[in-house]
Amino acid sequence: MKYPAVHYHDYLQIDKILNSQNPKSHEYGKPAHDEMLFIVVHQTYELWFKQILFELNAVLATFSREKVEETEMGVASSRLERTVSILKMIIGQIDVLETMTPLDFLEFRDMLYPASGFQSYQWRLIETKLGLRMTDRLAFNQSPFYKALSPDQQNEMMNVLNQPSLFDAVEKWLERTPFLQSQNFTFWGSYQDAVTRMFHDDMNIVRNNSALSEQDKEKNLKSLEASLGTFAALFDENAFAELRSQGHFRLSFKALHAALLIQLYRDQPILQTPFRIIRALLDIDETMTNWRYRHALMAHRMLGQKIGTGGSSGHKYLADATAKHKIFSDFFNLTTFFIPRSQVPVLPPEVTERMNYR
Amino acid sequence: MKYPAVHYHDYLQIDKILNSQNPKSHEYGKPAHDEMLFIVVHQTYELWFKQILFELNAVLATFSREKVEETEMGVASSRLERTVSILKMIIGQIDVLETMTPLDFLEFRDMLYPASGFQSYQWRLIETKLGLRMTDRLAFNQSPFYKALSPDQQNEMMNVLNQPSLFDAVEKWLERTPFLQSQNFTFWGSYQDAVTRMFHDDMNIVRNNSALSEQDKEKNLKSLEASLGTFAALFDENAFAELRSQGHFRLSFKALHAALLIQLYRDQPILQTPFRIIRALLDIDETMTNWRYRHALMAHRMLGQKIGTGGSSGHKYLADATAKHKIFSDFFNLTTFFIPRSQVPVLPPEVTERMNYR
Amino acid sequence: MKYPAVHYHDYLQIDKILNSQNPKSHEYGKPAHDEMLFIVVHQTYELWFKQILFELNAVLATFSREKVEETEMGVASSRLERTVSILKMIIGQIDVLETMTPLDFLEFRDMLYPASGFQSYQWRLIETKLGLRMTDRLAFNQSPFYKALSPDQQNEMMNVLNQPSLFDAVEKWLERTPFLQSQNFTFWGSYQDAVTRMFHDDMNIVRNNSALSEQDKEKNLKSLEASLGTFAALFDENAFAELRSQGHFRLSFKALHAALLIQLYRDQPILQTPFRIIRALLDIDETMTNWRYRHALMAHRMLGQKIGTGGSSGHKYLADATAKHKIFSDFFNLTTFFIPRSQVPVLPPEVTERMNYR
Amino acid sequence: MKYPAVHYHDYLQIDKILNSQNPKSHEYGKPAHDEMLFIVVHQTYELWFKQILFELNAVLATFSREKVEETEMGVASSRLERTVSILKMIIGQIDVLETMTPLDFLEFRDMLYPASGFQSYQWRLIETKLGLRMTDRLAFNQSPFYKALSPDQQNEMMNVLNQPSLFDAVEKWLERTPFLQSQNFTFWGSYQDAVTRMFHDDMNIVRNNSALSEQDKEKNLKSLEASLGTFAALFDENAFAELRSQGHFRLSFKALHAALLIQLYRDQPILQTPFRIIRALLDIDETMTNWRYRHALMAHRMLGQKIGTGGSSGHKYLADATAKHKIFSDFFNLTTFFIPRSQVPVLPPEVTERMNYR
Repeated sequence: MKYPAVHYHDYLQIDKILNSQNPKSHEYGKPAHDEMLFIVVHQTYELWFKQILFELNAVLATFSREKVEETEMGVASSRLERTVSILKMIIGQIDVLETMTPLDFLEFRDMLYPASGFQSYQWRLIETKLGLRMTDRLAFNQSPFYKALSPDQQNEMMNVLNQPSLFDAVEKWLERTPFLQSQNFTFWGSYQDAVTRMFHDDMNIVRNNSALSEQDKEKNLKSLEASLGTFAALFDENAFAELRSQGHFRLSFKALHAALLIQLYRDQPILQTPFRIIRALLDIDETMTNWRYRHALMAHRMLGQKIGTGGSSGHKYLADATAKHKIFSDFFNLTTFFIPRSQVPVLPPEVTERMNYR
Repeated sequence: MKYPAVHYHDYLQIDKILNSQNPKSHEYGKPAHDEMLFIVVHQTYELWFKQILFELNAVLATFSREKVEETEMGVASSRLERTVSILKMIIGQIDVLETMTPLDFLEFRDMLYPASGFQSYQWRLIETKLGLRMTDRLAFNQSPFYKALSPDQQNEMMNVLNQPSLFDAVEKWLERTPFLQSQNFTFWGSYQDAVTRMFHDDMNIVRNNSALSEQDKEKNLKSLEASLGTFAALFDENAFAELRSQGHFRLSFKALHAALLIQLYRDQPILQTPFRIIRALLDIDETMTNWRYRHALMAHRMLGQKIGTGGSSGHKYLADATAKHKIFSDFFNLTTFFIPRSQVPVLPPEVTERMNYR
Repeated sequence: MKYPAVHYHDYLQIDKILNSQNPKSHEYGKPAHDEMLFIVVHQTYELWFKQILFELNAVLATFSREKVEETEMGVASSRLERTVSILKMIIGQIDVLETMTPLDFLEFRDMLYPASGFQSYQWRLIETKLGLRMTDRLAFNQSPFYKALSPDQQNEMMNVLNQPSLFDAVEKWLERTPFLQSQNFTFWGSYQDAVTRMFHDDMNIVRNNSALSEQDKEKNLKSLEASLGTFAALFDENAFAELRSQGHFRLSFKALHAALLIQLYRDQPILQTPFRIIRALLDIDETMTNWRYRHALMAHRMLGQKIGTGGSSGHKYLADATAKHKIFSDFFNLTTFFIPRSQVPVLPPEVTERMNYR
Repeated sequence: MKYPAVHYHDYLQIDKILNSQNPKSHEYGKPAHDEMLFIVVHQTYELWFKQILFELNAVLATFSREKVEETEMGVASSRLERTVSILKMIIGQIDVLETMTPLDFLEFRDMLYPASGFQSYQWRLIETKLGLRMTDRLAFNQSPFYKALSPDQQNEMMNVLNQPSLFDAVEKWLERTPFLQSQNFTFWGSYQDAVTRMFHDDMNIVRNNSALSEQDKEKNLKSLEASLGTFAALFDENAFAELRSQGHFRLSFKALHAALLIQLYRDQPILQTPFRIIRALLDIDETMTNWRYRHALMAHRMLGQKIGTGGSSGHKYLADATAKHKIFSDFFNLTTFFIPRSQVPVLPPEVTERMNYR
């Protein structure tokens, strides 16, 4: 009544959607049954990529504000979690695609040359929006990825590359996280004390352990010292800067600190939703890595392995890119700086009060 | 080289696909974020429905031949199994759609009225191609389902309804299954003997079981007699015809027999692929039933329950249709006529030889 | 070093776990290959049920506190979400179980009589802990469910039935939710105004719509009035009490109000986690319903349908219980009382301030 | 009646199963909630590993016969497909395990040292039964994998290593596949002709393509020659032997040929089930690879990355083992030797007749 009547068929533009499949093998008069599946799988991928970009753009807008609104955080975490949910579901589509056998694929493979999943502009855009930089990308056969894009797409991609990514926006947001100290409490001092105490206790246990040989004691002590040493990156800004310049970290010192704080005190009311957001970003990164790997496995199965020829094979590239294209590695590596909750400094009331509702 | 170069983007008609989302809420100047998800989910559904129809049409062509070619059976079973795999995957999309909350849906629900999933022409076509008849369908608010379709769709649907469905073609194929008897062997006679012997043995065990009271004995014997009685449908064509006219069976007497034979002797080389085909048809029916039920649950969650108003609610309709719209119920019910393999008649060599390769 | 060395094999008590499968068919000298699968599926189910109970008990403890701690809410929502995740995963196990055909099942089915999934004590316990009451349960063949349990289990079950369930604890927690009014603001007054205004606007649109016949106008107006009427349950405590006594609601008036508030204002910082908790409870209920339904479908497939005998069939019972055993139906039905967010009363600053962090 | 009454609870030995969880953190008085999940996940893994071994042993028995029975092939393929189904399902359990955060894991991680998934005997057994040899395995921290096993397990593993694996049995079965030639037809001659013709046609197309520069022509021709060169491995037993000794192939020349034949002529009745068996073996290999990779990703997330210490990290090992532990790589690489079906030699009637039923 309030709005003009709508019909399912028109609203969803079903005619347009269902008239967008033109199998080459039919065009060339050698119909290969499975080409339809190939087309439909990739079209649904692209529809889902559009949806993922839609969610990421909304989340990016939220995090790009001068001051991120607390009332938008719940929705932002839900949108990131929805993105995870979409990614997991479309990984399941690989099972469907693999009902096509390599021999069936061969019937139309040559007709599509050189079209390739590497040319999916939206997938590249998702990676870029999340924060993958040009320099992070593995070159494919010596050519940078954007060579596979059309001129228009290259321009737009350059634009996006020059704007803050979700990585950048999240980093800024983390850097602004307060609570790091109060009048009588400096978190990092307390945390360093806790870490040092823990390791020294462990070392004493080793030294006093009569069941260990001197050799074993020495080995254990060395290992503990090395572990303690890795914490230098956390407490010494110069040591961190050095490691960051070597590529071991991407986040700033301040942002890394804030991320650790959120992890350790995720139960505080004000940190519950930020914790979910970091977890969802980890999930997105892990699921995209998993997606790339599944495609590498499938490519191996579909294309086999060239023996003795010089060309790099697609599935090898995919397998290598899989590991390299991670964006939020720092969140993965953060775990190295965790200590058991029983040893984590108790926050003073003047701090926890500020972390609670009025 | 052999074919003109193809680009991913053009080949998949990505511009067309990605320009087919026009959220009403944006059109009306009240953008509701989740409408995009709603559109994308339904568009991918329709793409997958197209793929399912493509597979079913190919299988229907195979089974519509005067003589079904043995060399096409492997492919036919793979295509039915692919259909199962697609159906299972798109059920997983409901998890994605349910990341939309009812309150988010409410922001644009009224704008879509009266568009509804009931209007999906392709879904109806899938049901019809498989073998769902007009009379099998539950009417929604007293109107037959095709009222929701456009005139063109109604015409096409009528056409399809008048052509043999997969149910019909499979029934014919089953009716032609040979092996039912040889010179010295009549399968149904042997099977009836086996069934009778089994039940009489069981009855004797009851009669001689001193641990049972007279009352329990009588109860058990009655139950065994009743079970034996159900086999009448299998051995007595008139009894079967009576039950069929009451709607307990849809398959013909002969086709039901063949289906049972395939189940019991599925290990014989010639029956291995037919067995897979029947199993895939069962899987399709069960998965479609599950799909309807998941949608009924989701509808309940999204729309709530009208209390005190007269209108029938969508989720109630869906839940009812769920059970009623099964097509291959006979294959489900066939189990009633199974007896343990140890009791199944051994086929004589002159029969098994014909079931093997040369 | 700090703790005695642990070995995977001992820690997980693998010998004990792997020595707990004694197929009856092997015991009776008629080995049926698929009985092992049957046992393993059900044992893993029971392990997962133990885990679900472990999570529910922890959440129940949190919600049973005099005052539910805000710092425990994040963890509680994660535990409920983990429960959902487990339930979804074990539904996937049905696909594995269905690789067993009915004929394979028949080879050992009789040997297990009368063992049945109905006897799973832990599943019943999960339902009871969540809040399913004796009176909510469908009787199976006229006997109450606990008849299938051992005397010890019956005692424990009675105990659990007499203690507050998660439903009860959540209801109490909801009843304590504040924010319902401030000095200058009574939420329910404002909400009732909004609802009334919305419906009257809609009615005016109908009345002034020259495209509608008088008959259609009347029909539309009646429908709108009926819809407005359903809101009486929300605003009129007596009307609500009447409907509740008829079984339309289970939650108290106050708790239902609080649940609605959480849904409508879920973006407020203090309500973000409560919103997740309600959503997780809905997910648990929906997924358990889906689980029951999948089992009903499988039972139909495995056992067929008794034709002409008096006994109620297992799959029919399961299908009926599916709908009836819902616990948080009120959360599903709440949707009926939603109005579009644009019409929802804006909270005054003195209220939103209390909903935010200090 | 026929068998003693059985109760669900006793039959499944539920008391034993549910009394096998002893969280160390509880034992040490520092209860960590998530340790229960950790235990249950791994116990269900081991139950499923038992089931997988049960299936593989049955299939191994079938394929170890002097003459593999055609009537056992359908069941064998179903058992391998069930194994795939189990593997896919337990990969889904990783999603459940990942609801445990690294910080929660840290609360009991030290208490379990040095227990590790590397010590799962059954997983190693599955790999060995399938055909993974000692020399195929990546050493972990320089120690061969069986050092992590108990003496008894080491003995049994040595035994299994000395018996034919599924790889060996399948290889033997493939070597016996007939049909490779008849009086007037030598398959490999015809196939070589077809391959040569196809490549020469392609080369002529390049030579006559006026749109290509001389440079491009040369490049294309070289690439085609290289591709043709890879087929030498297929037609020249000496060339194959050389590549096999370098580790490019594991299957014998004869077995590889048979596998290719099955792929190319899978539609022939007698090859339909063998084709399914090869596909299922591929699926098992691919899914196990995927399983290892998912665990590598999870390990990275749970444990982070040691920076600057010498020890090799678990997730790095897992990622490397992922690729290396494939067993049926030859089936993956076979694709290299496929040619489009339109070019595949047509089998003469005297051959296809023998591939059909009587």
